[in-house]
Amino acid sequence: MEQPKLAVSTVIFSLLPSETTGRMALHLPLVRRIREPHRGRWALPGGPLAPDEDLPDAARRHLHDTTALSPTYLEQLYAFGAPARGGEERVVSIVYWALVSQESASGRPAGADPAALSSAAAALVSGDPNVCWFDADDLPPLAFDHRTIVDYALWRLRTKIEYSRIAHAFVGDTFTLTQLREVHEAVLGRALDPANFRRMIEASDSVIPTGEHLLGTKHRPPKLYRYNSAVDLADTNPLRG
Amino acid sequence: MEQPKLAVSTVIFSLLPSETTGRMALHLPLVRRIREPHRGRWALPGGPLAPDEDLPDAARRHLHDTTALSPTYLEQLYAFGAPARGGEERVVSIVYWALVSQESASGRPAGADPAALSSAAAALVSGDPNVCWFDADDLPPLAFDHRTIVDYALWRLRTKIEYSRIAHAFVGDTFTLTQLREVHEAVLGRALDPANFRRMIEASDSVIPTGEHLLGTKHRPPKLYRYNSAVDLADTNPLRG
Repeated sequence: MEQPKLAVSTVIFSLLPSETTGRMALHLPLVRRIREPHRGRWALPGGPLAPDEDLPDAARRHLHDTTALSPTYLEQLYAFGAPARGGEERVVSIVYWALVSQESASGRPAGADPAALSSAAAALVSGDPNVCWFDADDLPPLAFDHRTIVDYALWRLRTKIEYSRIAHAFVGDTFTLTQLREVHEAVLGRALDPANFRRMIEASDSVIPTGEHLLGTKHRPPKLYRYNSAVDLADTNPLRG
Repeated sequence: MEQPKLAVSTVIFSLLPSETTGRMALHLPLVRRIREPHRGRWALPGGPLAPDEDLPDAARRHLHDTTALSPTYLEQLYAFGAPARGGEERVVSIVYWALVSQESASGRPAGADPAALSSAAAALVSGDPNVCWFDADDLPPLAFDHRTIVDYALWRLRTKIEYSRIAHAFVGDTFTLTQLREVHEAVLGRALDPANFRRMIEASDSVIPTGEHLLGTKHRPPKLYRYNSAVDLADTNPLRG
């Protein structure tokens, strides 16, 4: 019996300033296909599994090849294996989703000034003309079933930010509540009421004040917080340890 | 580059009376391996993907070959692909988990009398001497990494029953609150306080009274309920429709 080919692909999310509004927005890198089928279309980074390579290591390798970054969060999304996924050859794709942060590219936390974010955006772009970052809510037509995959990854991320520590991947170890809200707003793609957000976060016990304040020029510098690792959130899972 | 083999396996759960207590308990069917490696050990039902067969169809086929049943619930669990999973040949397993109900085997709902359950248990056992149902909390040593897989599936099922409609797979279209509680108790493997359970279920709006009562010999026959499909529970997922 002929075996289907196995591939590992990764949906990589980062927060970058929107080209139209300048506000932080979810972006993902896509790779332009240089071969048939779907030549010229944009596709998720991915490829075969190397011998002796574990699945998440393959996801990390493709992520690094595409962005020169390491993920701040990596999780298996789903295996896609419908017989008619678009090519002549049958491929079963085990898909991961990952978060990468500007901090790992630029040394600056999310919520920093726009100039720093633009240089972070530049740092996220590899020299490869066939790799480009797109606004997650304004994607070009994608190859194969990759649009379905991206939509599912977006659903997983947007569901998960509501009940888990996942925003942590986009902020530094310490952050202001405004920085945290801006991350939630960028991921969800909509504005949140600052007072409601503060109440919701404070009620959840998920973050605790560090006792320090953001250094800067403001008259009343905002308090810094960190995630409360003592709270058992729903993102604990026996396979993630 | 040599491709790893691809397999689809399924963790199949059903509720059957415990051999020791007679109470309903989670059971799963295992298949005794008749070839090396791990010859003689018990393993999850599974095997290769047929050409043109979709992943969930392969999971359903292995389930039917093992139990002669169709699942009342089927969901992709995870892809396991670590290089050293136990055999000489590298196999990546895409694992599903499924629920099957006594009803589909015997025409009787869960919570029926023990005699009916025993005949249901008999109906769940295929004629194959290399297939056997085991209590999920009293498993023999398993082949490969199948114990890790079963533990993860148990965790998923026990987490999910708290926030989703998944108990539905083990009860009929209508059920009493006692029948529903017995399903939760069997899945969780512990007794629940009847009054607390009733309050929790009533507060969740997840079930509604049908206005009918369980037919039987009791002086005060208990009310029948059905799931409230108008409530948006957390088990809705874009890939499940």
